Amino acid sequence: MKKKFLLAAVAVALGAGASFQASAQAKPEQLVKQRQSAMALIGWYFGPIGAMMRGDRPFDAAVVARNAGYLEVLSKMPAEGFQPSTKDEKATKAKPEVWSDKAKFDKAMENMQGEVAKLAQVAKGGDQGAIKAQFGATGKACAACHDDFRSK
Amino acid sequence: MKKKFLLAAVAVALGAGASFQASAQAKPEQLVKQRQSAMALIGWYFGPIGAMMRGDRPFDAAVVARNAGYLEVLSKMPAEGFQPSTKDEKATKAKPEVWSDKAKFDKAMENMQGEVAKLAQVAKGGDQGAIKAQFGATGKACAACHDDFRSK
Repeated sequence: MKKKFLLAAVAVALGAGASFQASAQAKPEQLVKQRQSAMALIGWYFGPIGAMMRGDRPFDAAVVARNAGYLEVLSKMPAEGFQPSTKDEKATKAKPEVWSDKAKFDKAMENMQGEVAKLAQVAKGGDQGAIKAQFGATGKACAACHDDFRSK
Repeated sequence: MKKKFLLAAVAVALGAGASFQASAQAKPEQLVKQRQSAMALIGWYFGPIGAMMRGDRPFDAAVVARNAGYLEVLSKMPAEGFQPSTKDEKATKAKPEVWSDKAKFDKAMENMQGEVAKLAQVAKGGDQGAIKAQFGATGKACAACHDDFRSK
């Protein structure tokens, strides 16, 4: 009993009761927030690598490796926020095509995950040329999906 | 030249130009968004473990291990969003104590990271009792910091 009480108290203290749900039971707006949070962080950690690749920032192999490692984990997150219950949500840039062509969307998401995993692998090696090539491939995977499935 | 153009085009296509910055140069509102996104995802992946520990959801060792692995990476992210430039931001629940007692705040953040890392380690073993004990320790680390540094 004492332990159960503690766990409930922790939940309340964290103010996280609403998120203590399986994603399938989560409210549509929570699902949108989940995927938008993941996408925001993907942009955050992808960005500095891009700046280095464009020469706008000095190349730092350690930062690239750290960020690419984060991105490998983050890339797995947005998909679960794209559940049919979110179809009619307004505060999202997801195009109707996400739902009318879900198979293509899922494939684009998997493609992105694969490219990001390769980027994380290449980043560990620290070779700037190899990282640049894989950064380009990753960016194309991101952009292809955004073009088809995200409003400007 | 062609490659540089491609990389710039990717940046534009992603609409992520604003996030293509080192965190030290990021605007205060971007930093707040970064840390809030990380915290939202921490709640998202911590929540289902809590539900299992409280008996509100069947124990699933694979989900616990997956989520705890995600949390180990996510736990490293919020700290970088707490930069002095965000001190006067309004759309945040950070208390002034984050800045007036930064050393204590940093220690609380490190303590959380340590407990989450232990949770990820224990989760790999799949032992429900051990996971429950470490979940409690982790929740306490989260709650201690929220109590001192986050408005209700």
